[in-house]
Amino acid sequence: MDEFDLIRRFFSRDAEAAGTVVGVGDDGAVLQPTRNTQQIQVTDTLVEGVHFPANIGAADIGYRCVAVNLSDIAAMGARPRWMTLALTLWDKDEEWVEAFAAGLFEATAEHGLSLVGGDTTQGDSVVITVHVSGEVEEGAAILRSGARAGDTVYVTGTVGDAAAGLELLREGVDDDELVRRFLRPTARIPQGLKLSRRAHSAIDVSDGLVADLRKLLDASGVGAEIDIEKVPLSAALLARFDTDSALRFALTGGDDYELCFTAPADAVAGMENITAIGTVTENHELVCRNVGEIVEVDASGYRHFT
Amino acid sequence: MDEFDLIRRFFSRDAEAAGTVVGVGDDGAVLQPTRNTQQIQVTDTLVEGVHFPANIGAADIGYRCVAVNLSDIAAMGARPRWMTLALTLWDKDEEWVEAFAAGLFEATAEHGLSLVGGDTTQGDSVVITVHVSGEVEEGAAILRSGARAGDTVYVTGTVGDAAAGLELLREGVDDDELVRRFLRPTARIPQGLKLSRRAHSAIDVSDGLVADLRKLLDASGVGAEIDIEKVPLSAALLARFDTDSALRFALTGGDDYELCFTAPADAVAGMENITAIGTVTENHELVCRNVGEIVEVDASGYRHFT
Repeated sequence: MDEFDLIRRFFSRDAEAAGTVVGVGDDGAVLQPTRNTQQIQVTDTLVEGVHFPANIGAADIGYRCVAVNLSDIAAMGARPRWMTLALTLWDKDEEWVEAFAAGLFEATAEHGLSLVGGDTTQGDSVVITVHVSGEVEEGAAILRSGARAGDTVYVTGTVGDAAAGLELLREGVDDDELVRRFLRPTARIPQGLKLSRRAHSAIDVSDGLVADLRKLLDASGVGAEIDIEKVPLSAALLARFDTDSALRFALTGGDDYELCFTAPADAVAGMENITAIGTVTENHELVCRNVGEIVEVDASGYRHFT
Repeated sequence: MDEFDLIRRFFSRDAEAAGTVVGVGDDGAVLQPTRNTQQIQVTDTLVEGVHFPANIGAADIGYRCVAVNLSDIAAMGARPRWMTLALTLWDKDEEWVEAFAAGLFEATAEHGLSLVGGDTTQGDSVVITVHVSGEVEEGAAILRSGARAGDTVYVTGTVGDAAAGLELLREGVDDDELVRRFLRPTARIPQGLKLSRRAHSAIDVSDGLVADLRKLLDASGVGAEIDIEKVPLSAALLARFDTDSALRFALTGGDDYELCFTAPADAVAGMENITAIGTVTENHELVCRNVGEIVEVDASGYRHFT
């Protein structure tokens, strides 16, 4: 099966979406931007064996490579529009590609995203790069750099589940809610759209809550005080792991793709599925407290600060 | 050197270009589309050992990965604006990355292209995916599908040089004009912009003149008669190879990144550096003639049609 066949057979769904003038099949796609918007562009690469274990299903890989990009679109408060796919394959057959495409289109369909172009190549390993373009009203993008002292720090959903799921997956468990949270992350597109013009800053949690919050604070030139006992943990996580392990996953595990954002408390009153976990401060430090006591958080988890 | 350091050190040049509201460093780039334009998006992947030999210099790889994408932008008649880079590396040091970045920025600077985002990952091989967005006035994109019977078929520059250069490179020759044509392809951006609203159809020559022309004709539902003795060959190519070999490179070798396009002859009168090589016909066949005699062209070259 040559490249052209592969694209045509599995990836050339008709782009019916408004705004896609020419989709897959020409030298480039022709897209019609919405009047008075700015465009958001994001790109993320998944490498087999690095970003996901080699033994997970093709449909999950297809879903996940879209979702992690949509998560960046969500963190900017944007509406997803167009996607391109660069697929480098090794030792995969048509069945794999078909399942991959099915998972990919499941993720795009949930958010009205159109696949408008791409490139498939043969290589020594599986490398998947997705590029997504979204739109925001002019000036409405939520940046990492907008946090202000006095903002409340929030996180959507629950954190730690995906990292716990990845650990279970490595232990051979594959039918579990935590594993599904790793394989099929939920891009917080609706929440991101609601946060546009409300939140002062946002980032998606891909490297771990503390690490990503630190990036946001550095970009904003501020600090924060976080109460780690407020960090939202799922019932599934607490059923499988003790509290210390659960908190370690929540604070330092990556792959959750929840949003961490800062906003004045009154700006997000009534929003569902968000949890306040702390406050932005003037100084540049990130202080974590566990029931009032200062603790230090690093890659291995948290420990009492002595 | 972690991913963040790598991006910051070598790829975070300030995007001064108008239209880049936020560049590298946030969850996504924020871009300001030009009023009354449509956007063109293209993406192409280069895999080490597949699209280029492992022993070519990092600066050439950096230049080339941008140029092959700009060539698709040129084939659409568009003006390049924004670029993202997804870089998967294996066994490369800082010196390699620095030289790669230098070559990459050489190619972007020639055409006012801004690097606005990307992702760097570690993998088992070197895989480079570049995504470029360009702009055209509404309705002005040149498609593959617009060729009409009676159009003249043209090609820019000379063809065959890059394929000959790749052969020389494999033989160990590295300081040669033909090799440079492979390593540093010229994206025909100015010609593409001139062709917008003049040419009926266009494609860039990446897989070989005959193969790419066939794609254009298929997309347009037409055929063509080509006089292969009119195909433009460089003095450098003819100095190194006999006419048969030169024509084989020109007709079936890829990597030239010239434009093949069709237009009414009077629409492109006075345009420099283009050569008429045939005529578009009603039927769906591509007929090649050598000084009047019909010949058959396939991957191994051309032969008399008996």
